[in-house]
Amino acid sequence: MARIVMKFGGTSVGDIERIQRAALRVKAESDAGHEIAVVVSAMSGETNRLVDLTRAAAPMHDAREYDTVVAAGEQVTIGLMSMALQDLGVNARSWLGWQLPIHTTDVHSAARITSIETGEVIRRFGEGQVAVVAGFQGMAPNGRITTLGRGGSDTSAVALAAALKADRCDIYTDVDGVYTTDPRIVPAARKLDKITYEEMLELASLGAKVLQTRSVELAMNHGVRVHVRSSFSDEPGTLVVDEEEIVEQQMVNGVTYAPNEAKITLRNVADKPGVSAGIFGPLADANINVDMIVQNVSEDGATTDLTFTVPRDSLDRTRKVLDGVRETLQWSDMTADPNVVKVSIVGVGMRSHVGVAKTMFQALAEKGINIQVITTSEIKVSVLIADEYTELAVRALHTAFELDAA
Amino acid sequence: MARIVMKFGGTSVGDIERIQRAALRVKAESDAGHEIAVVVSAMSGETNRLVDLTRAAAPMHDAREYDTVVAAGEQVTIGLMSMALQDLGVNARSWLGWQLPIHTTDVHSAARITSIETGEVIRRFGEGQVAVVAGFQGMAPNGRITTLGRGGSDTSAVALAAALKADRCDIYTDVDGVYTTDPRIVPAARKLDKITYEEMLELASLGAKVLQTRSVELAMNHGVRVHVRSSFSDEPGTLVVDEEEIVEQQMVNGVTYAPNEAKITLRNVADKPGVSAGIFGPLADANINVDMIVQNVSEDGATTDLTFTVPRDSLDRTRKVLDGVRETLQWSDMTADPNVVKVSIVGVGMRSHVGVAKTMFQALAEKGINIQVITTSEIKVSVLIADEYTELAVRALHTAFELDAA
Repeated sequence: MARIVMKFGGTSVGDIERIQRAALRVKAESDAGHEIAVVVSAMSGETNRLVDLTRAAAPMHDAREYDTVVAAGEQVTIGLMSMALQDLGVNARSWLGWQLPIHTTDVHSAARITSIETGEVIRRFGEGQVAVVAGFQGMAPNGRITTLGRGGSDTSAVALAAALKADRCDIYTDVDGVYTTDPRIVPAARKLDKITYEEMLELASLGAKVLQTRSVELAMNHGVRVHVRSSFSDEPGTLVVDEEEIVEQQMVNGVTYAPNEAKITLRNVADKPGVSAGIFGPLADANINVDMIVQNVSEDGATTDLTFTVPRDSLDRTRKVLDGVRETLQWSDMTADPNVVKVSIVGVGMRSHVGVAKTMFQALAEKGINIQVITTSEIKVSVLIADEYTELAVRALHTAFELDAA
Repeated sequence: MARIVMKFGGTSVGDIERIQRAALRVKAESDAGHEIAVVVSAMSGETNRLVDLTRAAAPMHDAREYDTVVAAGEQVTIGLMSMALQDLGVNARSWLGWQLPIHTTDVHSAARITSIETGEVIRRFGEGQVAVVAGFQGMAPNGRITTLGRGGSDTSAVALAAALKADRCDIYTDVDGVYTTDPRIVPAARKLDKITYEEMLELASLGAKVLQTRSVELAMNHGVRVHVRSSFSDEPGTLVVDEEEIVEQQMVNGVTYAPNEAKITLRNVADKPGVSAGIFGPLADANINVDMIVQNVSEDGATTDLTFTVPRDSLDRTRKVLDGVRETLQWSDMTADPNVVKVSIVGVGMRSHVGVAKTMFQALAEKGINIQVITTSEIKVSVLIADEYTELAVRALHTAFELDAA
């Protein structure tokens, strides 16, 4: 007997037939004697519909009212899922965020879960009851409905699994697992049987939209075993687990790319203390997410060149902010290049292998791809290149690190 | 300064533009210095959409889960209405049934309000805040969401007005008041400035679908002054008030008709104690709503004829139930006539006027309309006639009781 949290995303509960199919999966686990909590998202399209209504109602709106509106989506799904389960003879009941409750901070639309009361759900496990819990939502200390931000149902599921000390958190989604890279670019991409939390975090934050980043952090912090798998097949998916569970580490486990980057270069910036703060402080204040930063070594000891990347859709705002501080910082020239992509290799194995970066740079050089910026972390190497080389670079790296399927 | 509950039905909040127009009405009352609680329904069509989803999910479903699903409709509207009000500079916040809370019985899908906690809302009136409250929903003693049944938002509004000791409960709807009869049949129908609770009850239960019957009962019991008016015009509507407030009573204030009736006649039923119970008991058990009942005087002292009406769509079930008890009650013959209509005249004034029934019967006789069954109450006389005479009868009675507009 295991205790399992099963999470179904929007496409997995996109219509009544899909809800009924998901209910069959739940029934199978319940019939096998497991204790089951189901976490569901809103039916696909529903959250967007509700968000559009709020935008139409008022251009600037109260996040508390926004949360009240959009939380209605998951409310509908838990009721329908409970009905579908009952129709299959499964003892089930729905739980809204405020009913458990799932306590959160009061940062509406981006709330964080602070605690989940599970006593009643666990008591009902003893009576064979399946708990159907609304994802994405919780309750602020003052009793108002909060939401966790887009994709928050993954976080709800992992947090619930942690609170329930569940043996596993199964994330049912519309992909059948985590791949070594985007299969649309590299047909030889392989599904990974296991991946570490750290790798998953790098992949998630780089745009492999399988799991919300926060949910992976949470799983890592609480040691929740996450199983990413398809709602539409019975194949096993990818287990996201602790490093220790993976005996033989690959050097590199994934190649990923982040499009929609833009590169800014400032030439002849005064090379003195406080300059970086003078540039990146105002950008942070404007909520612009600066990613890669490279500062060239100063040649004359007086000025330096500074290159960094921002999201492409923040480019205009970035320019405006920089224009506002130019008078004090006095660079000679600002250039912007929106046609860049960040390509990364990820793997906890690179900690214990040397030469990973060298292999990467060689593989790119062999294809004649110029590297504009490099950044590294313990388990990742990223390069910024012209975006026209995206597919070529990803394929070359996937082959170079022996990730291609046999 | 007055305290006012303003209720907007589904068509009055049917899209964002209508919500914004309703918000303008609320702003006007709030700007005039009044304390305002707004009660809203789900956007028109939304409740039906949700009900259809529950039907598709499971043919027989848990009423608790049904309530969880359909209550989402009002949840969306309160958020949008609050946003629209804030956008107009009005201090407003939304309240779900469980947030106030609105306590109800646990009879899901047909719950009754037991009490409403208003302390916080009244405190916030003092800060100039408008309360936007979800109609139709409440919370059972065990903390689950309940709903009050279709049209329940009227009841929510009146109950809230009673709890708040409001000066008035304004029901904004898609008609501009209560008419002496159906204007589609009688173009000379007049809008009534005032009507008593008792009259409104008779009109509502007879199918003048302006106000839910339970809301009128509640208003009568708590002395809530209800103002039925149009969301789409600034004309005053109809005040539903205590009899004492109406100085000069009309003898008859309205002519109404209930289509979709069916008449059943049982001939030569044994005329002995327990026979009525033997017939109407099983019908009640089968949830069939028997309305008019007439028992002929027994000629031979041994058998009698019994005539009664049921809703037309219950006719088949009625026959089945009666077939089941025929063996014990042994009537000679059962006939059913689905082509009948109940036409009624309503007016508290008839209590103090004689000859009302006589005027009614004469008016119908003059048009050659045969009366099949008659029932009377203190403020109502109803006759059952062939439904092909519906319009003719309604027009004749409207004229006979001098209700035609000048």
